[in-house]
Amino acid sequence: MKIICLDLEGVLIPEIWREIAKKTKIEDLKLTTRDLPDYDFLMKRRLKILRENNIKLKDIQKIIKKMKPFKGAINFLNWLRKNFLVIILTDSFYQFINPLREKLFYLPIFCNQLKIDKAGFIKNYQLRLKGGKKEAIKLLKALGFEIIAIGDSYNDLEMLKEADFGLLFNPPKNIIKKNLKFEIVKNYQDLKFKLKSVIKK
Amino acid sequence: MKIICLDLEGVLIPEIWREIAKKTKIEDLKLTTRDLPDYDFLMKRRLKILRENNIKLKDIQKIIKKMKPFKGAINFLNWLRKNFLVIILTDSFYQFINPLREKLFYLPIFCNQLKIDKAGFIKNYQLRLKGGKKEAIKLLKALGFEIIAIGDSYNDLEMLKEADFGLLFNPPKNIIKKNLKFEIVKNYQDLKFKLKSVIKK
Repeated sequence: MKIICLDLEGVLIPEIWREIAKKTKIEDLKLTTRDLPDYDFLMKRRLKILRENNIKLKDIQKIIKKMKPFKGAINFLNWLRKNFLVIILTDSFYQFINPLREKLFYLPIFCNQLKIDKAGFIKNYQLRLKGGKKEAIKLLKALGFEIIAIGDSYNDLEMLKEADFGLLFNPPKNIIKKNLKFEIVKNYQDLKFKLKSVIKK
Repeated sequence: MKIICLDLEGVLIPEIWREIAKKTKIEDLKLTTRDLPDYDFLMKRRLKILRENNIKLKDIQKIIKKMKPFKGAINFLNWLRKNFLVIILTDSFYQFINPLREKLFYLPIFCNQLKIDKAGFIKNYQLRLKGGKKEAIKLLKALGFEIIAIGDSYNDLEMLKEADFGLLFNPPKNIIKKNLKFEIVKNYQDLKFKLKSVIKK
């Protein structure tokens, strides 16, 4: 009875804010928590930039709808859902993720929520709870499940620690340097191979 | 951010033990907790009967693999997964449910586990935890989700109570008599209509 808790951005699809920056050609939207570690400051800044550039939620949803999962991601996810119970955990928002759910087999995705004003601008964001990914793992463990967590970045390390088994998927260099604990897999083939050995246990 | 927690037997598919009784022609396997309220006694009795009749797990899996969801169930589930996050909660067992997962879009199903001996007989069962359905609802609520629970029988009433919104789907008469609290829907069309009004809230 194993649940796979899978990060979304960087594991199945590219980083959403980077894609928004690219398509809107607004360089400042490329900044992440690696550049501005205060998440609240970063998010408020992003929302301010969007408003200044007259970019509404529906414009962003159009960009996201065209995003493609990484090559091989959907085949991998299809294999994964057949062999495990899969729940996707992300710090992103329902309003961003909804256009992608069909591609992801409508598997459950635990997200956060955006607040939209009447004109259609994003006015704020709302976290379900602090450290949502880690808490999800903790509570699923309390239900008697064995949890395998897969992530790629800083905001995944806590959930990987909390899981019974944690794997880093194709992480950026600074994470590779910092990580002393988790096995690293570079591609879906290796990830599948690794998980097959876990099924047998 | 609403999660639908959906019971399986009686809501999407017929009762599994009743089907096993029918196909093996062993009347005693029809008994449920309504006839023998002590679940442990009931289960041990079922496993004893199976062994006495030389029925192994693989024989039961063959019966289950041929089971069909109720008419309209899959269309309903398909609509449901597009509009909500869906997790199926059942007191049944992975080894029973696995042959049905494809039909159910490989959505996550929280089950219990059977212990199988070397000869392939079911030797025991293992609950993940006591009151698993209710606990699942409780912990998902603690993650900040609003939970809608749908069930049909005695063993669902606790989870319906725990949920933010509980619905009884086509329950047996004795449940209808006992129930003073939950709305009752008789078919998928009414259930969909009811849930649509919940989406709007």
